Amino acid sequence: MLTIKPILLVLLIWPATFLFAKPTFSVTSPNDALRLSVANGPTGNVTYQLTYKGKKVIEPSSLGFVLSKPKISLTQFTITAADSSSKNETWKPVWGEVREIRNHYDELALTLTSKDTMAIKVVVRFRVFDDGVGFRYEFPEQKSLTHFIVDDEKTQFVLAGDHKIFWIPGDYETNEYLYNTTRISEIDAKTAFDKEKDIALTSFIGPNAVQSPLLMKTGDGLYISIYEAALINYPVMHLQVDKRKLAFTSQLTPDAVGNKAYLQTPAQTPWRTILVSDRATDLLSSKLILNLNEPSTITDPSWIKPQKFVGMWWEMHVGKATWEKKGGKHGANTQNVKKYIDFAAKYGFDGVLVEGWNVGWEDWFGNWKENVFDFVTPYSDYNLDSLTTYAQQKGVRIIMHHETSGSVTNYERRMDAAFQYMQKEGINTVKTGYVGRIIPRGEHHDSQWMVGHYQRVAEKAAQYKLMVDSHESSHPTGLHRTYPNWMASEAARGSEFNNAPTLGITPEHTTILPFTRLLGGPMDFTPGLFRFKLDQFDYKRTTRVRTTLAKQLALYVTIYSPLQMAADLPENYEAHLDAFQFIRDVPVDWDDTKIIAAEPGDYITIARKIKGKDSWYVGAITDENSRDIAIGLDFLEPGKTYQATIYRDALTADWQTNPEAYVIEKKPVNSKTKLPIHLAKGGGCAIQFIRK
Amino acid sequence: MLTIKPILLVLLIWPATFLFAKPTFSVTSPNDALRLSVANGPTGNVTYQLTYKGKKVIEPSSLGFVLSKPKISLTQFTITAADSSSKNETWKPVWGEVREIRNHYDELALTLTSKDTMAIKVVVRFRVFDDGVGFRYEFPEQKSLTHFIVDDEKTQFVLAGDHKIFWIPGDYETNEYLYNTTRISEIDAKTAFDKEKDIALTSFIGPNAVQSPLLMKTGDGLYISIYEAALINYPVMHLQVDKRKLAFTSQLTPDAVGNKAYLQTPAQTPWRTILVSDRATDLLSSKLILNLNEPSTITDPSWIKPQKFVGMWWEMHVGKATWEKKGGKHGANTQNVKKYIDFAAKYGFDGVLVEGWNVGWEDWFGNWKENVFDFVTPYSDYNLDSLTTYAQQKGVRIIMHHETSGSVTNYERRMDAAFQYMQKEGINTVKTGYVGRIIPRGEHHDSQWMVGHYQRVAEKAAQYKLMVDSHESSHPTGLHRTYPNWMASEAARGSEFNNAPTLGITPEHTTILPFTRLLGGPMDFTPGLFRFKLDQFDYKRTTRVRTTLAKQLALYVTIYSPLQMAADLPENYEAHLDAFQFIRDVPVDWDDTKIIAAEPGDYITIARKIKGKDSWYVGAITDENSRDIAIGLDFLEPGKTYQATIYRDALTADWQTNPEAYVIEKKPVNSKTKLPIHLAKGGGCAIQFIRK
Repeated sequence: MLTIKPILLVLLIWPATFLFAKPTFSVTSPNDALRLSVANGPTGNVTYQLTYKGKKVIEPSSLGFVLSKPKISLTQFTITAADSSSKNETWKPVWGEVREIRNHYDELALTLTSKDTMAIKVVVRFRVFDDGVGFRYEFPEQKSLTHFIVDDEKTQFVLAGDHKIFWIPGDYETNEYLYNTTRISEIDAKTAFDKEKDIALTSFIGPNAVQSPLLMKTGDGLYISIYEAALINYPVMHLQVDKRKLAFTSQLTPDAVGNKAYLQTPAQTPWRTILVSDRATDLLSSKLILNLNEPSTITDPSWIKPQKFVGMWWEMHVGKATWEKKGGKHGANTQNVKKYIDFAAKYGFDGVLVEGWNVGWEDWFGNWKENVFDFVTPYSDYNLDSLTTYAQQKGVRIIMHHETSGSVTNYERRMDAAFQYMQKEGINTVKTGYVGRIIPRGEHHDSQWMVGHYQRVAEKAAQYKLMVDSHESSHPTGLHRTYPNWMASEAARGSEFNNAPTLGITPEHTTILPFTRLLGGPMDFTPGLFRFKLDQFDYKRTTRVRTTLAKQLALYVTIYSPLQMAADLPENYEAHLDAFQFIRDVPVDWDDTKIIAAEPGDYITIARKIKGKDSWYVGAITDENSRDIAIGLDFLEPGKTYQATIYRDALTADWQTNPEAYVIEKKPVNSKTKLPIHLAKGGGCAIQFIRK
Repeated sequence: MLTIKPILLVLLIWPATFLFAKPTFSVTSPNDALRLSVANGPTGNVTYQLTYKGKKVIEPSSLGFVLSKPKISLTQFTITAADSSSKNETWKPVWGEVREIRNHYDELALTLTSKDTMAIKVVVRFRVFDDGVGFRYEFPEQKSLTHFIVDDEKTQFVLAGDHKIFWIPGDYETNEYLYNTTRISEIDAKTAFDKEKDIALTSFIGPNAVQSPLLMKTGDGLYISIYEAALINYPVMHLQVDKRKLAFTSQLTPDAVGNKAYLQTPAQTPWRTILVSDRATDLLSSKLILNLNEPSTITDPSWIKPQKFVGMWWEMHVGKATWEKKGGKHGANTQNVKKYIDFAAKYGFDGVLVEGWNVGWEDWFGNWKENVFDFVTPYSDYNLDSLTTYAQQKGVRIIMHHETSGSVTNYERRMDAAFQYMQKEGINTVKTGYVGRIIPRGEHHDSQWMVGHYQRVAEKAAQYKLMVDSHESSHPTGLHRTYPNWMASEAARGSEFNNAPTLGITPEHTTILPFTRLLGGPMDFTPGLFRFKLDQFDYKRTTRVRTTLAKQLALYVTIYSPLQMAADLPENYEAHLDAFQFIRDVPVDWDDTKIIAAEPGDYITIARKIKGKDSWYVGAITDENSRDIAIGLDFLEPGKTYQATIYRDALTADWQTNPEAYVIEKKPVNSKTKLPIHLAKGGGCAIQFIRK
């Protein structure tokens, strides 16, 4: 419900004397729980604040910009217009966690006119939903501003208390960190950064810089997330924390010469988002980020298919094979890939990812070299022509890997030829990779130019009807609504770190991801590791997979993605075909999703309904603590019976001592059943419900 | 003739004690005039020196590198091998000033091994020709060096005296400066830079930095040029002068992060060249730069055609029309271009350049904007389809303009589509432009990445059988031997500056260009301005064309290019059809060239023989002084009579007071004739000799 104060009614005849009166505007969410107010201070500063059910969420926090061209500070304004509107609509995603999404908000758009002689107009548009707020800056076409360069964005988020916070260090190149859980006042990005040894490329921002999305939990039980939506033509927003003031300020990623963004009116920033709820489960079901993105640009999305795949990938990570041909252990040889195609066909997978297929891996990483790969030249021991034919006969598609080694100028030059080659070979999904320092040199993975690149890839891929799975790209911000062929990205610490020697992946990591990184969009986490012993591979790992096998299954439900990999080796699945059945069965596209229970860093239980059928899947995971939970099944249709197939930790299971101890049991259930489930330390449970 | 000292014979059994002996190596030119010596000092420094007929040209000057990865200084070496060889061959250029070029040198290749623990091997290869020296560094494949980053090149050129020197300020973005003539000790790049107001984009290096090619004249009458050849995969070399030591040191153009070059063994630098002669005319006929470039990569060059063209260009410069459509004065409209096509057809020109044909000019310059032009969308008032058909019927080709506005990432993305579009339209020549700050941001026009770009354009254009005329590109270094479809470039102050308000083009400028910029390759100078009055155009110019009309004709001979524009407006040519006849007649491809007389900054007279016929053309130009010269015609075949058509300044001509006063006369001549010619102040003379 929109409640603009009566003052608004006189805006058009705003008296000059009134400008000194400190006008205030406010807008509430449709359900009245959230209330956002904006004040124009006597010096011209503009601040917003936010309450949830009367509790302070955001204390007065300033808005503004510093431009380097024209050289001007946009922090002192007169509010010269205010417009309000509201929207209540539903829309259908091409694929996703739910069939239909409601987009319901009240909006307040304030026109700020800078108090200098240029009188630059900036519109700040606030959208207040029941589950949070989004706001962005818009620079309309105007005489005194056409092309401009952003030196700094001055958006503040002042928190109302020293909350518990889940954060990773600010870094312009990577987001593959483990989460830290501290108070705001205890944030120490430097110490956290120094612990990390296994990230291929970092560009640490500073001891007080953290990444968004940030998740906080307040003393009085609010869950707050700060993030951004619709990141287009703008750099990634990191955040600088003032630990004394409990304030975060936007820290945009710079380009090679230190500028942040080059814009031309009409222009707008991404949405700055604040999710708020007193229930953790609500945060996980929020569609606010998606709602703030533009509708799909793809009019006929019939070629876009959620899919499950296996692949030539984990073999390399564990040292059984290599990406490069040199050395005699080349993984992507015709015979080996054929084995994966046979496996995929036998067990009903859509795709086979093949990494290390193309010439260049002998010399690809760490040298800031521009011309590494051409994306169209297979290694001589990899007969792609015959394999695509073979795969087609078996109803399987190869997924092509385009590792750019960070040389994006090279990739952009060759992208058309590469996509044409894919088309010719009947390949319709590409996994892109950006391991290495970016070329154009001086750009970062998170800078405006790279953000533009990821978008260009999505757009060009759509022209060729290709689906994209981007790795080492910047954090997703709901753009899969606009570009539904951009199926998933990595942009966080994924399952590959189970093989990293230093920190690996902690048991709690996957209970935090859905509250942070996954808010922005699907992740190609690559779950499904079935083999936990350290002695099996050539490569000498000191860490290992820190889950039970049952938890690996549960991740297919708790981590949503329309592209899900079964990451382990065929022989490891064949050693556990009974458990593997769950991965074979679990869908990657859903009609509905219910967040049953969730606490960041502790546990998550999610139920999802398969698309077009009355069958459900549940995933439940825990952190390093074992838990005994009871899953209520009231999501099932009342009065109907379902066959539940439960893949759970054995009572003796423990990620450290007994990870492969699982039990599979079947039982009839209905909507009134309470399923008691034991989750081992680092454990989980996956359940399939088939309507009888 | 190669004279390696006997010491060389014991190189393979080089005794350890000998390493402290300061070994010296030397090599002389085939005619013995030049003698280059290399010494290995007791601390490991390696210096070279050069004499010409016993006179010192280069005093002992050091060689070396600083790498930033691996972090090492490569300045102290042991010379561990020496190889000598020689070459004497001739080759035929696809087009050019002469039919055949002799490549005759003696070579000395020294292997320097760095005195640190890495023992990095660098080969310095010297080639000593009769007209100068070229040397380059080569980094062979070796265990301790694969990928490396050049932080600095430490090549010195210590001159033997405080010579007169022709120089322009060092600048990473542009070479469009007027030349300054001082002593070496008087170089003051800052003052020179500050005088320049009309160059669109500059990146001034510093008060002691100058550009190459540098031309010097010594007190005892030697002409010395320092330059580079075969600039590939390396940044442009500028030079820092030490005015006290009379020494120049290489100053490579940095990239966005300050590095100079990213190389991978085997790698090599461009050739550093020193031309030396006691006759100025020899410098102008030197083919050393070309000889140091690799042979043509184009096996069938039959599609490469030297050409003369007119175009939609000077109209915009003088303010009669605009590039942009907005404003109502759009030059490149169908009707106007048709007029140019008619004019070209009527007077026998091959091409019509059309600038401002494509959407984007409203918003193209100065904003560091990435997506300006798409190179395939004509303005709505420009019907390219109909015009290419019309031109084809008339035997004329449109020359397409690709202004990138410096946004090279955008151009590289679109280049294939743009070249395909050209092919479809039957257009076979592209004029590229790079007005504006480079994107990738932080790169310079002269940095390694951009040098790579110009090469990529030449290579891709060759794939599409397109000829290239590049403007605002880096200085040419003889690459037109390797890429003969890269016909010409600008890369200096061209005729457009006749319209620049501040300094314009001095009368001496064109007498210096052939000694400097033109040593590297053809220039699209765009001569042929016939209209000298200031009152004719909308645009308020304060400078004007500072030549006589006859000198404009002479420039077609004194400035060699296989692409020559007749730059003025059709109506201005039609007001002087008699003089215009010379431009119609003068060829752009030659069998032979004789430099008859030349003194940098003063005068130049050149005779050229038309390809495949016994007819000659002569151009003679002077600076601001009038001169009475006598041109000996001994280049003509003895005993034969030729009809000379002489386009000369009238006796009353003067660039300031009477520029359009010319006389055309015909007379029979033979090889014994001495033609007395009066050159006005700022004047010139053009002569056609037709064999009777």
